[in-house]
Amino acid sequence: MELDEAIRGRRSIRRFDTRKIDDAVVEELIDLARHAPSSMNGQPWVFAVVREPGTKRRLAEIKNLYCPVEKRDYSADFIEQASAIVVVAVDRRSSHDRDVENGVLAAAHIMLAAHARGLGSVYMSAYRQDEPAVSAAIRAVLGMPDHVAPISILPLGYPAETPEPKRLKPLSEIVTHERYRIG
Amino acid sequence: MELDEAIRGRRSIRRFDTRKIDDAVVEELIDLARHAPSSMNGQPWVFAVVREPGTKRRLAEIKNLYCPVEKRDYSADFIEQASAIVVVAVDRRSSHDRDVENGVLAAAHIMLAAHARGLGSVYMSAYRQDEPAVSAAIRAVLGMPDHVAPISILPLGYPAETPEPKRLKPLSEIVTHERYRIG
Repeated sequence: MELDEAIRGRRSIRRFDTRKIDDAVVEELIDLARHAPSSMNGQPWVFAVVREPGTKRRLAEIKNLYCPVEKRDYSADFIEQASAIVVVAVDRRSSHDRDVENGVLAAAHIMLAAHARGLGSVYMSAYRQDEPAVSAAIRAVLGMPDHVAPISILPLGYPAETPEPKRLKPLSEIVTHERYRIG
Repeated sequence: MELDEAIRGRRSIRRFDTRKIDDAVVEELIDLARHAPSSMNGQPWVFAVVREPGTKRRLAEIKNLYCPVEKRDYSADFIEQASAIVVVAVDRRSSHDRDVENGVLAAAHIMLAAHARGLGSVYMSAYRQDEPAVSAAIRAVLGMPDHVAPISILPLGYPAETPEPKRLKPLSEIVTHERYRIG
């Protein structure tokens, strides 16, 4: 798929059908993720592939437990229906204090590459700045040591929904030249 | 360009020739950036396009001033040679406490779309968690109000360098299944 088409067509998908994603396809996504830039070329990524229903369940429970009030309409239960979940984490020993950026840049590749292969995904955070218990709980479920920081949770599956077209803000509301002149 | 090709071919570029990037091309990149996912679909982005040499100079000075010791080999002076710099920022009133993630997801689109158009870019951070003076200085240069958080600085230009092939870590060192088993 063309890059522009992938970018324009990708949407957040939270309903999946029961088809399994081949292991080889999950591996392709991770192969592309590791081409992301990283601070000082540290390539600090750890990609944890989750297939077991019990592990998916525990991740959903953690997301629900620590969900901010304003996001309560978005239960994480749907991730149990994902064929695979990729948790993007970074080894803090080689992330040069740029854990989140390194993780998110790789996550962006996975979401685009998934869409280009007919798969759906949605970006979910694996930490909260103000609540270290979120990362700690995810680390515990996945057996990650303290020096590994989970950043993103990416459920993956064949889409069972077609979202309505999204209304994007016009460029005039989000672009500014030289000095800030918005709003 | 095909998505996979764009992802595999994109590299960090820090040398640019003197050709100008058309305004329409910069606008295309930002148009694609706003298709990124955002927390609660807040679309909190502000994209500041910088062309003026004096403003580029001031951004380079800020980056150099606050550069961590371990990164001192990477002077930011080169960004003065960029045809355009896009500073990706987020309006904190609609970012749902996910400033960095929202910003970086948009930045990833810009870097891929730039590469697909024969342009080079490199990811640079516009903040330091431990040093609020960095964001404050960038906000001051760009006239951004306090509720706008600069996240990424993306210099853009036609490449005047061809980086050596990058050695990527093998998947066996970065992928784990169910429970963490790396190293």
